[in-house]
Amino acid sequence: MKFSPLVDELIESLRCLPGVGPKSAQRMAFQLLERNRKVGQKLATALERSMSEVGHCQACRTFTEQDLCPICSSPKRGTAGTICVVETPADVLAIEAGGHFMGRYFVLLGHLSPLDGVGPEELGLALLEKHLSSEDVTELILATNPTVEGDATAHFIADIARRHNVVISRIAHGVPVGGELEYVDSTTLALSFNGRIPL
Amino acid sequence: MKFSPLVDELIESLRCLPGVGPKSAQRMAFQLLERNRKVGQKLATALERSMSEVGHCQACRTFTEQDLCPICSSPKRGTAGTICVVETPADVLAIEAGGHFMGRYFVLLGHLSPLDGVGPEELGLALLEKHLSSEDVTELILATNPTVEGDATAHFIADIARRHNVVISRIAHGVPVGGELEYVDSTTLALSFNGRIPL
Ligand SMILES: [Zn+2]
Ligand SMILES: [Zn+2]
Repeated sequence: MKFSPLVDELIESLRCLPGVGPKSAQRMAFQLLERNRKVGQKLATALERSMSEVGHCQACRTFTEQDLCPICSSPKRGTAGTICVVETPADVLAIEAGGHFMGRYFVLLGHLSPLDGVGPEELGLALLEKHLSSEDVTELILATNPTVEGDATAHFIADIARRHNVVISRIAHGVPVGGELEYVDSTTLALSFNGRIPL
Repeated sequence: MKFSPLVDELIESLRCLPGVGPKSAQRMAFQLLERNRKVGQKLATALERSMSEVGHCQACRTFTEQDLCPICSSPKRGTAGTICVVETPADVLAIEAGGHFMGRYFVLLGHLSPLDGVGPEELGLALLEKHLSSEDVTELILATNPTVEGDATAHFIADIARRHNVVISRIAHGVPVGGELEYVDSTTLALSFNGRIPL
């Protein structure tokens, strides 16, 4: 026995959120019930609406409930000459947080993974190629993750892009700024040597 | 700029959950949108229903959407002679997890705190006294927190209970089992000396 069915179900449902264990789910449920019912209602509505209404940007595939996301629909960036390819919408946020990139994005929503049935079609590469064949686009930056799958995906897309008149690059991998050499893994260290820049 | 209004609102609403920072809120939102829309829908429904339907047990004041919680409505425990007074529904769960206590509970939903406007009325002490004056009840265990407020509340309730024919006790405070003396704070250590048990 725990509580009543409805309270138990609330705790169970909160547990399904990533990173939420039984203790935190309980704490969340009790805090909402005790003093934040309005917050709980607001979250319920936001969840309800976004689970049913949020789809993908028709140009870059990031999450949006509109036809085009704010970046793709912005006059300055929506027709920018540079496209940055990333794996997930979270990567877009991470790059936007830097505030330096002023081009547009293309979100793969994954990486090539034949065993899981993820091929060029699932990553929307036909749509990407349509962008590449437009006159606006002059540069493609491949910012997939520095993993085996991310690298393979970057090379696969680079092969496609070479058929079009665009400059292709991969973001640099190396020692993070502020990081200490001794704590960086050997693969990263090797990449940072290979990518060394003449002074 | 972040995402579209609806996605931003989902992230904002998730941030209002206790212990959820901006990064985890984002991770939760993306994971739900990417591959767990059904889980998100289920959580929305559970939140929606529990925020509007869950009230308090008419006998013990813990959370329930029914008139009586499962403990109070159980034939064995609902009329038990022993009442254990706790501050929150979470305390009920903690004691139930032990599985040793077989009586019923009374949940104060707080502790005496005159400055915050929390007095005997807010803690439902009239209802508690009604239980105490019934012939069934023979024992009262005060399990409020070992804090200044919890102690004051326990003493206040003990004074009320003395008007009735019940045995009154306060749970013991001391060194936790498996704890090491050197890491226990001095107040707890003092309590464990005062409460020493002859062998
Ligand atoms: Zn877009
Ligand atoms: Zn009850």
